[in-house]
Amino acid sequence: MNIERAETSERMSKIVTHGDTVYLCGQVGVAGESVADQTRECLRRTEVLLEQAGSSPKHILQAIIWLADMGDFAEMNGVWDAWVPQGHAPARACGEAKLARPELLVEIIITAAKV
Amino acid sequence: MNIERAETSERMSKIVTHGDTVYLCGQVGVAGESVADQTRECLRRTEVLLEQAGSSPKHILQAIIWLADMGDFAEMNGVWDAWVPQGHAPARACGEAKLARPELLVEIIITAAKV
Amino acid sequence: MNIERAETSERMSKIVTHGDTVYLCGQVGVAGESVADQTRECLRRTEVLLEQAGSSPKHILQAIIWLADMGDFAEMNGVWDAWVPQGHAPARACGEAKLARPELLVEIIITAAKV
Repeated sequence: MNIERAETSERMSKIVTHGDTVYLCGQVGVAGESVADQTRECLRRTEVLLEQAGSSPKHILQAIIWLADMGDFAEMNGVWDAWVPQGHAPARACGEAKLARPELLVEIIITAAKV
Repeated sequence: MNIERAETSERMSKIVTHGDTVYLCGQVGVAGESVADQTRECLRRTEVLLEQAGSSPKHILQAIIWLADMGDFAEMNGVWDAWVPQGHAPARACGEAKLARPELLVEIIITAAKV
Repeated sequence: MNIERAETSERMSKIVTHGDTVYLCGQVGVAGESVADQTRECLRRTEVLLEQAGSSPKHILQAIIWLADMGDFAEMNGVWDAWVPQGHAPARACGEAKLARPELLVEIIITAAKV
């Protein structure tokens, strides 16, 4: 199967496609904003990358969510639940992990399918 | 490749199948029980979902394990090692992460293959 | 699709191949060494396993990196950036998680493609 990479730096590719499977690099929002706003921006960036990859929010297979503080679980979920296309929710797991910068509150790692 | 989802809520699907690959949502046990008992229940639930997905414990490809306290590593491993079908152990990683509720001690994220 | 396992113990397989996709167990370096040295050894071991699996560092799809202390981010990245084959960087995410032993500072979970 063919591998395609996009938005590739020396450290990572934002998109890697292998056959019909799409891997995105961990997406974050804007450091310093509220967890709800960071989640919204994180998911907006995810949408852009999925479209670029020939996928969509309806084609997400797995989402692994890291929260810097599990106390933000409900606030993140409020944004997540409203964003997920009805009937197309992915397999999901959410755990607490500090992120690359202390001001980053949420990071989402997406595996998706090509349309 | 076809995507099939099962046990789908607005937040997540417990099972997502993409071609021959099965993604389960993070499985936990019963909050408040010992880590050994939570691991047993987590793996029992995993078995049920794998069977529902047309897979089995012999067909697990990757397991990512989160422990709320790495001090529970040996106790979790005792249950895990006894459960894994001999000769069919998956690729595995285990790290410490607080989970959705403080009483949850272990969560396992499974990727498997259809039989 | 066929499943092949290699270096299989009762707990895990170091390599699991499913069709064209390769899952490695979480790789670490030598406990007690610096994070740079642990990262170097971790990546050296990754290379050995990828070669054994019929893959290579140019064929990594996703890397999930756990650091025991996010303060080691820059030092780990220095080794990582120099190691990744130019133009072939995988999708990547990095979060903080304590590992199986307190002296372990970095663990990397690799999904790759067969050549």
